[in-house]
Amino acid sequence: MAQLARRPLLSSSTRCIVPSLTSRRSFHASPRWNLRTTEMSEKDLGDLKVSQKRLMEELQHSCKWGTGKRYGDGPNETGMSRLSLSDGDNYVRDWFVDTMRSLNCTTTIDAMGNIFAVRPGLRNDVPPTFAGSHLDTQPSGGRYDGILGVLAGMEMIRVLNDNWVETEFPVGVVNWTNEEGARFPLSMCASGVWAGATPIEEAYNLHSVIHDNATMKAELERIGYLGETPCSYEAMPMAAHFELHIEQGPILEAEKRKVGAVVGVQAYKWFTVQVTGRDAHTGTTPLENRADALLASARMMQHAHRAATKYGARASTGILTLEPGSTNTIPGSVRFSLDVRAPSDEIVAQVEEHCREAFTKIGAHEGVQLEGKAYDYTEGGTKGLPCGVEWTVDSVSPAVNFHPDCITCVKESAAGLFGASEVGTLTKDMVSGAGHDSVHASKRCPTSMIFVPCRNGVSHNPEEYATDEDCAIGAQVLTGAVVRYDRLRAKKEPNLRV
Amino acid sequence: MAQLARRPLLSSSTRCIVPSLTSRRSFHASPRWNLRTTEMSEKDLGDLKVSQKRLMEELQHSCKWGTGKRYGDGPNETGMSRLSLSDGDNYVRDWFVDTMRSLNCTTTIDAMGNIFAVRPGLRNDVPPTFAGSHLDTQPSGGRYDGILGVLAGMEMIRVLNDNWVETEFPVGVVNWTNEEGARFPLSMCASGVWAGATPIEEAYNLHSVIHDNATMKAELERIGYLGETPCSYEAMPMAAHFELHIEQGPILEAEKRKVGAVVGVQAYKWFTVQVTGRDAHTGTTPLENRADALLASARMMQHAHRAATKYGARASTGILTLEPGSTNTIPGSVRFSLDVRAPSDEIVAQVEEHCREAFTKIGAHEGVQLEGKAYDYTEGGTKGLPCGVEWTVDSVSPAVNFHPDCITCVKESAAGLFGASEVGTLTKDMVSGAGHDSVHASKRCPTSMIFVPCRNGVSHNPEEYATDEDCAIGAQVLTGAVVRYDRLRAKKEPNLRV
Repeated sequence: MAQLARRPLLSSSTRCIVPSLTSRRSFHASPRWNLRTTEMSEKDLGDLKVSQKRLMEELQHSCKWGTGKRYGDGPNETGMSRLSLSDGDNYVRDWFVDTMRSLNCTTTIDAMGNIFAVRPGLRNDVPPTFAGSHLDTQPSGGRYDGILGVLAGMEMIRVLNDNWVETEFPVGVVNWTNEEGARFPLSMCASGVWAGATPIEEAYNLHSVIHDNATMKAELERIGYLGETPCSYEAMPMAAHFELHIEQGPILEAEKRKVGAVVGVQAYKWFTVQVTGRDAHTGTTPLENRADALLASARMMQHAHRAATKYGARASTGILTLEPGSTNTIPGSVRFSLDVRAPSDEIVAQVEEHCREAFTKIGAHEGVQLEGKAYDYTEGGTKGLPCGVEWTVDSVSPAVNFHPDCITCVKESAAGLFGASEVGTLTKDMVSGAGHDSVHASKRCPTSMIFVPCRNGVSHNPEEYATDEDCAIGAQVLTGAVVRYDRLRAKKEPNLRV
Repeated sequence: MAQLARRPLLSSSTRCIVPSLTSRRSFHASPRWNLRTTEMSEKDLGDLKVSQKRLMEELQHSCKWGTGKRYGDGPNETGMSRLSLSDGDNYVRDWFVDTMRSLNCTTTIDAMGNIFAVRPGLRNDVPPTFAGSHLDTQPSGGRYDGILGVLAGMEMIRVLNDNWVETEFPVGVVNWTNEEGARFPLSMCASGVWAGATPIEEAYNLHSVIHDNATMKAELERIGYLGETPCSYEAMPMAAHFELHIEQGPILEAEKRKVGAVVGVQAYKWFTVQVTGRDAHTGTTPLENRADALLASARMMQHAHRAATKYGARASTGILTLEPGSTNTIPGSVRFSLDVRAPSDEIVAQVEEHCREAFTKIGAHEGVQLEGKAYDYTEGGTKGLPCGVEWTVDSVSPAVNFHPDCITCVKESAAGLFGASEVGTLTKDMVSGAGHDSVHASKRCPTSMIFVPCRNGVSHNPEEYATDEDCAIGAQVLTGAVVRYDRLRAKKEPNLRV
């Protein structure tokens, strides 16, 4: 970080390319310099600089709709509460559409309210390369999750305009509807419909779980975003999808890195585990006569953690409910969630298989073997009566591998920014722990993501924060990746060139 | 049990002493035979037989007020829901008072609605020896907890009447108000006021937590049980207090014993433990970056169980709540109850002291020593970030030792019933795990309790059940103990005799 402090990655002159928002030049209003992406040198690519100042001013400006909880005294020290298809979401959508049109993009709204803004290329009868994310937030969310990805796409278009860049093929920015699933309870909702993973009627019939009971279709209609273009990868095909996002985890910050080249998304499987013992009086029931469902559950949760450690996975319990719930009654019934994640489906399956067998044994007060190591959870304690264990599978999300071409474009863009000597220490290949619209996009087009650090790894929280410099670095890498992908398409399919 | 089946402990002829409830003889209406307790032989004492049939008919009859949830097809296969000072409680109180008066007892109602029914002795200017318990139940309670103790006292009076027994001193039956603390949230409520442990204004101002918000005083007034006699051990002194109760635990049943001679009540201390980590996304947060308050709590609960095992105590968690409570969020905050019980205050203190130190270490991912044995809960797992631990003491109840004189009377009564050869296998000295009105009574007069087995140790449940035979055995031992105590008083203080 000391190096970075001495030599800003984005030179201060960068911020002066565009003196003010009002004096920006428009691509179509100016004579073309014919700076085709396929004819740009490495130096030309390096000269395509985003404006940190403009990016952050626009980002903070967009957060005036749907502002959330204040956590500090600074002008931007509030979170966001911009639920999907709320009035706040309506305003920011209108602003997004108007701005993109002013930047000479065509805009299309599909039947799920997804907004596609496209800047023409030299040839326009082929799908655009998209950058994008989502403008909706959690009810108690922050200013970066999703928002940065869309705003960085807008900045990318501005950089192309400012520099009179001619892409071979169209380039666009997409705002996906209801990524959070916070108001209408299905996350990555409209990208799922676009990819054909979710039937549109299922999405339309989702009822708001916050404020009112309105359906998603009714709310799309109310705010004027029920578009006529079908929501599908066939009606609105993409050549590729790039998404810039805050990491939502602590790794980049901890390792003092600036960019994560996201190579895929973890597999995960969600379970509910029901442990059944017998209610009994805490005072009158000797330890050996107890079928203590909570003690058994405590041992299971600890064992799931050990299994996750052993197999290189993550296992977590976020919900636990018990009955009957009285200080002097041993709980006869405990239900807990189990969230297992790993880079591959095989590892998730391995953890599941092991835990299913181990939990049954733990419930029966038997010892457990984990890769040759024996664990006896009753050691030093008292063996009680057995507890039953039942599993329910709530959700399955297989691992996603992003496209090598997209990953390569991201890495080359980062190398162009950081230089060959520093790119190794400042970037890292990462697997996303959370789901994003890119998961669905990746089923229908080459896709990858770019992560930037966020403070303490905190997200879905008003205090979610990424530095202006890190946001700009992310937008810079995104812009470079999209331009490089445009060059790559032309190179791979020369017959497509004009 | 085979022995018992061959030779019923209560001969079948017993059940014929009183052909029907209507033809019973009343003590004062009949010529005295001058069968003074102090002049009774062991055989005379043995001839004082309770009627199992009458006891159980009366008990089931009393359960027609405040009947609860049905669990089987039999006529008595319902639980009880007779909340303190409810209409059901009002009816059963009226019946109790009327019945005791018909048995030639005087009845006194004190300012907390406690009902004292007294059968005169030869000398009546000294306090009576009482048997008793409570007629109120849990909202989802059974037909035995408390009810058996009062009904057995009524049967005792009938046995004394039937056999023209003259006690040296008065003998009574007490029904204590709101023992359960289920409607007005303070258990052993009115015996606590009687003993001076609870200020009466505190009890009066308790608000109903079920159905309505009425205060205890208002409800006493409404049902006509706000008596004029002050509620205190001074206004209504007791020479002794004997209480028959179902065990509410599994020990007697498991060991095929019939009677527990209760020598005291466990000490207990209730705590709330607050464990504070940090909310984080389950997908994006590596195991080593987590301050997982639930995993830490799981380890703490397991350690409390180990400490209880080591020190001969009981440790239990009956309530656990967590925040924020979402499958994909690691809980940053967990609160759990910890109920520690042991036969002595010293052992409770030992478990507390050990756990306070151990929980702090577990929260910090450090190893713990328990009596020379090392436990490392992070072994085979991943050390994460530390969690903070805070303790709150919610309730303290020191150990109670019942009075040797009362315990001796119970044991001698059991020996008289079972015979010297079987008393050892059929009875057991026990420490009560639960609190009872006898806890408060014991502070102001010699006290002990008698336990009888209940099915599966289940209590506070509609299916709570004790066999008719076991109930009658309990009533028999109670009657014998009260008569023996009357003899003991006369022997110990000969100047009190008429």
